[in-house]
Amino acid sequence: MKALITTIPFGDKNRLPLELLEGAGIEYLINPIGRKLVEHELAEMVADFDVIIAGTEPITDKVMERGKNLKMISRVGIGLDSVDLLAAEQRGIKVSYTPDAPAPAVAELTMGLMLTLLRSVHVSSMQMHDGHWHRYFGRRIPEVTIGVIGLGRIGSRILNRIRSFGTPRLLLNDLLPDKEIGRQHKVEWVTKETIYQKADVITVHVPLTGQTKNMIRKEQLEMMKPDAIIINTARGGIINEQDLYEAMKRGHLAGAAIDVFENEPYSGQLREIARCILTAHMGSMTIDCRTRMEIEATEEVVRFLTGKPLQGLIPEEEYNVQREGL
Amino acid sequence: MKALITTIPFGDKNRLPLELLEGAGIEYLINPIGRKLVEHELAEMVADFDVIIAGTEPITDKVMERGKNLKMISRVGIGLDSVDLLAAEQRGIKVSYTPDAPAPAVAELTMGLMLTLLRSVHVSSMQMHDGHWHRYFGRRIPEVTIGVIGLGRIGSRILNRIRSFGTPRLLLNDLLPDKEIGRQHKVEWVTKETIYQKADVITVHVPLTGQTKNMIRKEQLEMMKPDAIIINTARGGIINEQDLYEAMKRGHLAGAAIDVFENEPYSGQLREIARCILTAHMGSMTIDCRTRMEIEATEEVVRFLTGKPLQGLIPEEEYNVQREGL
Repeated sequence: MKALITTIPFGDKNRLPLELLEGAGIEYLINPIGRKLVEHELAEMVADFDVIIAGTEPITDKVMERGKNLKMISRVGIGLDSVDLLAAEQRGIKVSYTPDAPAPAVAELTMGLMLTLLRSVHVSSMQMHDGHWHRYFGRRIPEVTIGVIGLGRIGSRILNRIRSFGTPRLLLNDLLPDKEIGRQHKVEWVTKETIYQKADVITVHVPLTGQTKNMIRKEQLEMMKPDAIIINTARGGIINEQDLYEAMKRGHLAGAAIDVFENEPYSGQLREIARCILTAHMGSMTIDCRTRMEIEATEEVVRFLTGKPLQGLIPEEEYNVQREGL
Repeated sequence: MKALITTIPFGDKNRLPLELLEGAGIEYLINPIGRKLVEHELAEMVADFDVIIAGTEPITDKVMERGKNLKMISRVGIGLDSVDLLAAEQRGIKVSYTPDAPAPAVAELTMGLMLTLLRSVHVSSMQMHDGHWHRYFGRRIPEVTIGVIGLGRIGSRILNRIRSFGTPRLLLNDLLPDKEIGRQHKVEWVTKETIYQKADVITVHVPLTGQTKNMIRKEQLEMMKPDAIIINTARGGIINEQDLYEAMKRGHLAGAAIDVFENEPYSGQLREIARCILTAHMGSMTIDCRTRMEIEATEEVVRFLTGKPLQGLIPEEEYNVQREGL
């Protein structure tokens, strides 16, 4: 039995996932290229592996075609936009994921980005390092209107953390309003357009699907307040990068924080925008969450290869999302 | 009646404080130099003013000597290290302050700095803007040990905000342990040395006094874990800047965030340290808190000049602190 580990880093801060594989007698190869693989690299690499322990690289029909022995994909993380689920289903390849593990780390990073943006810490620090002293006015969380799009595992955690800072106006949007959230917090369920128009801080926590790709592009950016702040720790492509660059280049928006990109590693034009915080897809990158994700994904592989029932199989609705078009 | 407003900005986002002065028939001059004044500048400027609406510039015996008409100092903010209280007392000059107004803004900035440092957001963003992609491992708040020195208005607020992120080990130090805090949170009251040795995150929230000046210098920095994180949003000089620079230069500490400096505007060597976040004394610089501070300080001046009882007079213990030596 052979496992291809494409996600990196892996087993870096905690060797336990590697020991689990070794203990089960599973051979493994960790991504030798050392960055996110593109389709043809993965296709060339996958040939005789039984399972992929996967990051966010594209696992397309072409990749599966080349993976003649491939029987299972175990995603380290939650997003499934990178996996052609319908192709996997047709070929009888099982797909599992670790949907809960990343949420606390992503929520915490998002809060840090929100507080940093609201106080212009990133701009002041850059200027201070360059020898310029300017005391920026900021805004506190209770003083602003915060729009959260997507109230799943991450969005709902963010609400709980926001509340320790006071009671901002909270504008929420999701496919279905979650009544439980309304019982815990004073919130308003509104359209996305209302969030774009009214919110001072906008943060997105939706998966990348046919519905959400380019969800925020030129038209939506132009609806936003000139001093709005926007955060994407979800998936690259939900906010159109080129449109965001052009809007910010001409002075629109007070700040942005982008952790995820259409093409990673990112080297695009947002690098020119000093008030745009850029981070290297680090939402889940805390030692504890990352280790938990790696262990959960590896345990699932061991279960699969030893014939035990799987615990992280993705639900039918994820297939339906892709049936509706990614 | 004439008021010298030394703190800047003032009346910038909200004109109400200026209107209060105008309504009471008080002439005013706003610091024409446009940055924090040094002693001789203030001494030259103060001559015929009745009150100073003050920032953190040095209001020394020499300054008061030159301020022949000076009857009152109204500090916009909380720290009193910049005012020679004993000289003021001897000359019969009243001193008031606004101790509550800045606390929520300082606590919120401190949380943002803590989250940013724990996830290396500042380092990743700088590198991304330079075209380098590296996924840093971070730590989440519930996974670390946090040491808080000083549990007054700001330190205690920080505890409340930390708790929404989970339950880290909390090591606290103050002159007197506050039993109420122990009832609300699981905490350990320890010596400062224990905090230096055991904490992953150290944040100081004490006034600058003879006891706290250079409280954290070479010796204390060397006690800290090599990957500790240190935050100063209190007063410049509590952490010795030169010693911090030398420690970080040789690779000690994972990160630092310094908002306050011995000499402001700051242009010292910490600018060379990329993993040290530097901000321009912005702790209280949110529109709401700054406005509240300015209004409270101005109302106190109007009360004084119209013979009404003062509400923000500093307590006797502040004089005692200075009697013990600043």
